[in-house]
Amino acid sequence: MIGVESHLREKFIKVRNQSIKLCQPLKPEDYVVQPIVDVSPPKWHLAHTTWFFEQFLLIPNKSGYKVFDDDFSYLFNSYYETVGERVLRPNRGNMTRPGTDEIYKYRKYVDNQMLEFLVRNEINAALSNMLELGFHHEQQHQELLVTDIKFILGHNPLFPEYLTSGKEIPQRSNMDEEYIEVMGGLHSIGHRKNGFHFDNEKGVHNVFLHDFKILNRLITNGEYLEFMENGGYNNFEYWLSEGWEWANGLETNAPMYWHRMDDGWYRFTMHGLKPVIPSAPVTHVSYFEANAFANWKGKRLPTEFEWEAASNGLLEADVNQGNFVENDYLDPIAHQDGNNQMFGDAWEWTSSAYLPYPYYKTAESAIGEYNGKFMINQMVLRGGSCATPKDHIRNTYRNFWHPHLRWQFTGIRLAENI
Amino acid sequence: MIGVESHLREKFIKVRNQSIKLCQPLKPEDYVVQPIVDVSPPKWHLAHTTWFFEQFLLIPNKSGYKVFDDDFSYLFNSYYETVGERVLRPNRGNMTRPGTDEIYKYRKYVDNQMLEFLVRNEINAALSNMLELGFHHEQQHQELLVTDIKFILGHNPLFPEYLTSGKEIPQRSNMDEEYIEVMGGLHSIGHRKNGFHFDNEKGVHNVFLHDFKILNRLITNGEYLEFMENGGYNNFEYWLSEGWEWANGLETNAPMYWHRMDDGWYRFTMHGLKPVIPSAPVTHVSYFEANAFANWKGKRLPTEFEWEAASNGLLEADVNQGNFVENDYLDPIAHQDGNNQMFGDAWEWTSSAYLPYPYYKTAESAIGEYNGKFMINQMVLRGGSCATPKDHIRNTYRNFWHPHLRWQFTGIRLAENI
Amino acid sequence: MIGVESHLREKFIKVRNQSIKLCQPLKPEDYVVQPIVDVSPPKWHLAHTTWFFEQFLLIPNKSGYKVFDDDFSYLFNSYYETVGERVLRPNRGNMTRPGTDEIYKYRKYVDNQMLEFLVRNEINAALSNMLELGFHHEQQHQELLVTDIKFILGHNPLFPEYLTSGKEIPQRSNMDEEYIEVMGGLHSIGHRKNGFHFDNEKGVHNVFLHDFKILNRLITNGEYLEFMENGGYNNFEYWLSEGWEWANGLETNAPMYWHRMDDGWYRFTMHGLKPVIPSAPVTHVSYFEANAFANWKGKRLPTEFEWEAASNGLLEADVNQGNFVENDYLDPIAHQDGNNQMFGDAWEWTSSAYLPYPYYKTAESAIGEYNGKFMINQMVLRGGSCATPKDHIRNTYRNFWHPHLRWQFTGIRLAENI
Amino acid sequence: MIGVESHLREKFIKVRNQSIKLCQPLKPEDYVVQPIVDVSPPKWHLAHTTWFFEQFLLIPNKSGYKVFDDDFSYLFNSYYETVGERVLRPNRGNMTRPGTDEIYKYRKYVDNQMLEFLVRNEINAALSNMLELGFHHEQQHQELLVTDIKFILGHNPLFPEYLTSGKEIPQRSNMDEEYIEVMGGLHSIGHRKNGFHFDNEKGVHNVFLHDFKILNRLITNGEYLEFMENGGYNNFEYWLSEGWEWANGLETNAPMYWHRMDDGWYRFTMHGLKPVIPSAPVTHVSYFEANAFANWKGKRLPTEFEWEAASNGLLEADVNQGNFVENDYLDPIAHQDGNNQMFGDAWEWTSSAYLPYPYYKTAESAIGEYNGKFMINQMVLRGGSCATPKDHIRNTYRNFWHPHLRWQFTGIRLAENI
Repeated sequence: MIGVESHLREKFIKVRNQSIKLCQPLKPEDYVVQPIVDVSPPKWHLAHTTWFFEQFLLIPNKSGYKVFDDDFSYLFNSYYETVGERVLRPNRGNMTRPGTDEIYKYRKYVDNQMLEFLVRNEINAALSNMLELGFHHEQQHQELLVTDIKFILGHNPLFPEYLTSGKEIPQRSNMDEEYIEVMGGLHSIGHRKNGFHFDNEKGVHNVFLHDFKILNRLITNGEYLEFMENGGYNNFEYWLSEGWEWANGLETNAPMYWHRMDDGWYRFTMHGLKPVIPSAPVTHVSYFEANAFANWKGKRLPTEFEWEAASNGLLEADVNQGNFVENDYLDPIAHQDGNNQMFGDAWEWTSSAYLPYPYYKTAESAIGEYNGKFMINQMVLRGGSCATPKDHIRNTYRNFWHPHLRWQFTGIRLAENI
Repeated sequence: MIGVESHLREKFIKVRNQSIKLCQPLKPEDYVVQPIVDVSPPKWHLAHTTWFFEQFLLIPNKSGYKVFDDDFSYLFNSYYETVGERVLRPNRGNMTRPGTDEIYKYRKYVDNQMLEFLVRNEINAALSNMLELGFHHEQQHQELLVTDIKFILGHNPLFPEYLTSGKEIPQRSNMDEEYIEVMGGLHSIGHRKNGFHFDNEKGVHNVFLHDFKILNRLITNGEYLEFMENGGYNNFEYWLSEGWEWANGLETNAPMYWHRMDDGWYRFTMHGLKPVIPSAPVTHVSYFEANAFANWKGKRLPTEFEWEAASNGLLEADVNQGNFVENDYLDPIAHQDGNNQMFGDAWEWTSSAYLPYPYYKTAESAIGEYNGKFMINQMVLRGGSCATPKDHIRNTYRNFWHPHLRWQFTGIRLAENI
Repeated sequence: MIGVESHLREKFIKVRNQSIKLCQPLKPEDYVVQPIVDVSPPKWHLAHTTWFFEQFLLIPNKSGYKVFDDDFSYLFNSYYETVGERVLRPNRGNMTRPGTDEIYKYRKYVDNQMLEFLVRNEINAALSNMLELGFHHEQQHQELLVTDIKFILGHNPLFPEYLTSGKEIPQRSNMDEEYIEVMGGLHSIGHRKNGFHFDNEKGVHNVFLHDFKILNRLITNGEYLEFMENGGYNNFEYWLSEGWEWANGLETNAPMYWHRMDDGWYRFTMHGLKPVIPSAPVTHVSYFEANAFANWKGKRLPTEFEWEAASNGLLEADVNQGNFVENDYLDPIAHQDGNNQMFGDAWEWTSSAYLPYPYYKTAESAIGEYNGKFMINQMVLRGGSCATPKDHIRNTYRNFWHPHLRWQFTGIRLAENI
Repeated sequence: MIGVESHLREKFIKVRNQSIKLCQPLKPEDYVVQPIVDVSPPKWHLAHTTWFFEQFLLIPNKSGYKVFDDDFSYLFNSYYETVGERVLRPNRGNMTRPGTDEIYKYRKYVDNQMLEFLVRNEINAALSNMLELGFHHEQQHQELLVTDIKFILGHNPLFPEYLTSGKEIPQRSNMDEEYIEVMGGLHSIGHRKNGFHFDNEKGVHNVFLHDFKILNRLITNGEYLEFMENGGYNNFEYWLSEGWEWANGLETNAPMYWHRMDDGWYRFTMHGLKPVIPSAPVTHVSYFEANAFANWKGKRLPTEFEWEAASNGLLEADVNQGNFVENDYLDPIAHQDGNNQMFGDAWEWTSSAYLPYPYYKTAESAIGEYNGKFMINQMVLRGGSCATPKDHIRNTYRNFWHPHLRWQFTGIRLAENI
């Protein structure tokens, strides 16, 4: 058993450090603000992920554990009604105290306590599962840290750079498009392996699919620009009714972070404001935009079941062939041969609403609030983006967002009937 | 062919008269208002259904047809962007002109023109289809007329009666609950017969279902009252996150139209304010409430596919056994033997989001705006309510509403896994 | 005393009939709606003015009086918190019942009861005062009836005519502008005669004025058009900060009811849509617009004290010279010689906030809610408009509206320092 | 002339340092946020006051001056439309860059440039006036710094202390109330001395006042508590109509920063959460509350003219008698003998709307936007609070706020007619 625990300690240290690493480029002020309700302050993410380990691991399991500060449960609970009152989400950005320093102390305290706990205690299956949930919870927030920081910097008129390494996003030409056939029939959907997964992926079940074709790569900025130049934002025929209303409220008829300059379109990236690269995947589009684009093309978005069926085996292949490396530009890059861009580029909007699988069972206790209660008015995204931690990516992973949101690295893949 | 046309004329007259009949109990003032954006003024319904025949039948097909009034297209177009500008939906209730008299003249004019057209012209398949669409469109608005009138009267502090016949809703005891088993496997879903259907029911396709059980009747007021008395509205565990927020904004923790009086709960009905009948189906609940109730019961709502599979053949049986008669109380009544209450009582919330079927194809032209563009953020309801015209009911019919809405006669049926 | 009572009865009949006369041109639907919160349904005005006599005259004074309907107090109380609960103002337009017929019955019932009361009872000073308040209250609502009806019809895309007499508004040329000098010093302000007046005019007091000049007529449409054509709406320098924000939200940079057509500017009038008459006074401008216009002209608006001082004696002169006749076009007309347009053309925005006079005393009881509680965030208007009943006009009358409102016949007169 | 310039330099250094001193207790996070639109981030205040000197002194007057950063004009312009585009006010709190460090550099740069300029250049009257305006502008923002910091800390559930000196606010008993008579007649109003003043105080003019009495001190917490305990917040009779609506939306029926604890009422102060001191002046009340309190007491608020007349000579007396010392508790303290609490305790709501004086003239250029454009919907406050810099206090000073605002140190003094 010692091997397991040592592995868990290493994993714990690695995951926890990664959150801190992501915040290295920030100035003290960047940690604080919440410019829209969906974007949380970076310091809140740092504290909330820590609170998770304190609340669900240390308090119930470590004997004699003394909470770091009684107020923090109130301050850093995100949405767990079971655990008591909490600061209302829209007010997160007004809480200047505790300061970032204090939160780093909180992290250190809880980390030390956790490591002590992991050394001294036997980690049974339940604990190990909770710990893994803590890792994945933190990884989810790491992705949010990236996208929330991008939002905070990208809406500042100075367009500050987050990555100043000088490394430029590679400009390479795009591969041809190809629609790959997938045979219909009964497909088994849902997570069935031993590894970690959320409750919403559970409940393996059969879904009958009709034959279909799916694109071998993501839609590019260049293709999306064609849609824009063809009046895509001005023709209601392509849009869902609520999407049309949404699009009419946009300041710029383009993906988020695009700016029209004298010499063409630019995008805010983690390296600052840069010209749009036509061969790179389009990102930061809403479901409404993805759906309108598909209609304009005369195609459709895949269902999440089609996507899962089409992706079967591809992640393992990618990993084996070395196609799947972490993309440290924090920006998707053009597609290269032998790789269908299904993982690690952009979250791909599917045409499936986020609903429970047939055998879905809500977990008991606060952890049961994790996923199920969001199963309304959201659409499923599959794949994982350039901001998703590599070992947080699975082909059964069900991400979900409201159809109008686009501050995540969201992209488009098309499908069609045969 | 004469037979067909004569049948169409009769049907036309019958459908058109029914709208007028529904408005008989109204006072002139009741025709005008739009208390919430979802509820349209009755005079608007009368005009809009007429405009449909003018716009899609007479103008394109009747030679020499002179429109009744050029402004009406602007005034009574509901949401067809193809057909040009229109009064924004929230302003319908501020348009006092044209008055109801003028709208009745408009109806008479268009009716005469239509009857003339139906006598003189050969009705080919395309025309006949469009005509049928017009009938069903008008029947949809007849259901809305009932629910919108109920809203207008039911939110008036005087609680005026719509039906003054004196006939009371029958108080009968409720049948036992029974969960009926349905075998899984591949089920064929979608409309495949010759009769009329909307585009959203088309595209027959297979869906694989796992074995399940479904309740033999609707949930009653009495059962819902138990949920209320058990603190159902005060326990977040039963609720979707958006539902919990919605419920916290309610003035009364009860279905719409329920009022707590000194001697118990009352409901506004078409006969005025009446005591709640425990054995009658609960109606006017939102998806949020239906889902919370199911969670409280430890069951779930059926998917629309399960519902369709479970209902196969039942409508025909109902009709044959005389179980299916129009319910002119405009209020659902307690369930009787040999009848599963699947048709004509309440629209039943399913756990399926309103999305296109695999082979869904949007129709060309304005008619293509009919259904597809609403396929986001809405849930499917199946069955048909006491306000639905009898020949508008089909077991493949897909109704859909946003999860917070409940001014329709919406009800609850439960399911469970085996 | 008989003379007094017979006079009061005659006055009662005359005032009450006038409200009905103003509603003659309405269709049943026009009585019902409330397109913005400030505009009440005509049938509500008819009922509310009746409720005033029932509540404040009949119930406390007529022995054995039986209220017409117990619910009406709740339905037709406007803002008197003393008198109990009431329908919230924004919901007035959703109350289709009681219908207009029922309200006419209510009027007849209360009128009969009042006339009976006026015959049989000795009317002491307190009663006589309350009665007069009832008359003036009803006259205020008569002005609102006109402006509310104008709003309802003027925002209908059919632009229906209210007056169909065919009489056109006279087109006559405008008199020259002249700034009349008024000497400063102590001026006595406030109502001091015997006649009727509201509590807010009471408390005669001295105000010291510096010498000033005031324009001999109202600003015309032609002058206002110059302001518009000079970019008046596009230059922030002329505007108050809140006014600039308000103006940026306008759909049309022009007074309310103005529409730009191919051949120039039109205005919706009680005779329908008509070309703007350059020599007629501009109306339907907000305080923000009046103030911006004055700044553009390098002048200012007068204070209410300057206005009152300048108007002293003019009303009597007007009446004696026959200049003051009721204007039944319900639209102000161009200014003619020997008449300063101070009365009966437009309510003139002054630069004075609506605040209590030094000796202002709130009346006891519900009547005390009449004026005082609105003394915040509103500006005083003086004079009286073409919609104001003639015997409701006084030179001490203090009208008041929020600075952004303009559905009343509001106009502009300029002043300057010497 | 050298004397003048050296005095100006000293004053410049003193004023500029004071802003920095006020920010010493802040943590980096406190500088950033804007919890309500009225409260600006402290770092914004530091930058904006600096921008004022750069924009209005250095750029037009210092030859060869190089702006610190071209973007700062856009970022730190507050409301001067003349000077070009600016960040919309509600977004100030989302601008994390430039960081506070950068802003301190900006201050140092501009300060050095200013000092260099003040040494090398002859300061003519126009320059000297602009400089003084800069000082007073910065002092206004110093007061806002205090109140905005109080808001930011006081709405944090941790209630952090700003002043940790340990010095407690002195608890002393309150002086008796006395209503001091002031004789009516013509009073001269407005600033007439040589010293600095804003344009809105200019235009000395006569105002006729009737005899009145005014309270010799501010209303205390104890007196206000009586109003609360007498149901002051639950009786509409005391309230303006808009005030009643406002009060019904309050979470706590008490002044801002009051919290009901088990052992009585507490207030958030700059020393943290402390028990309410009954003898200290009540602060953080809105105009609506001040007015309701006065009505409950059967008194009224003074007009700004009465206040100015009553205060004549008192400031000088205070200064001479040593009564007027800066209160470094940043909280008003109980009233002591020989001191009417007119200066330096709380801004006192008057019953006067903020309007131009008769001879008011807007200054040319951007500086002309300073005051005049806010002359609508605001009430005048007089005196100056414990947060107002001492040499920023004058008895002709006209402060102004919207009637619902109360995050300033606003208090109540009563008056009555004789």
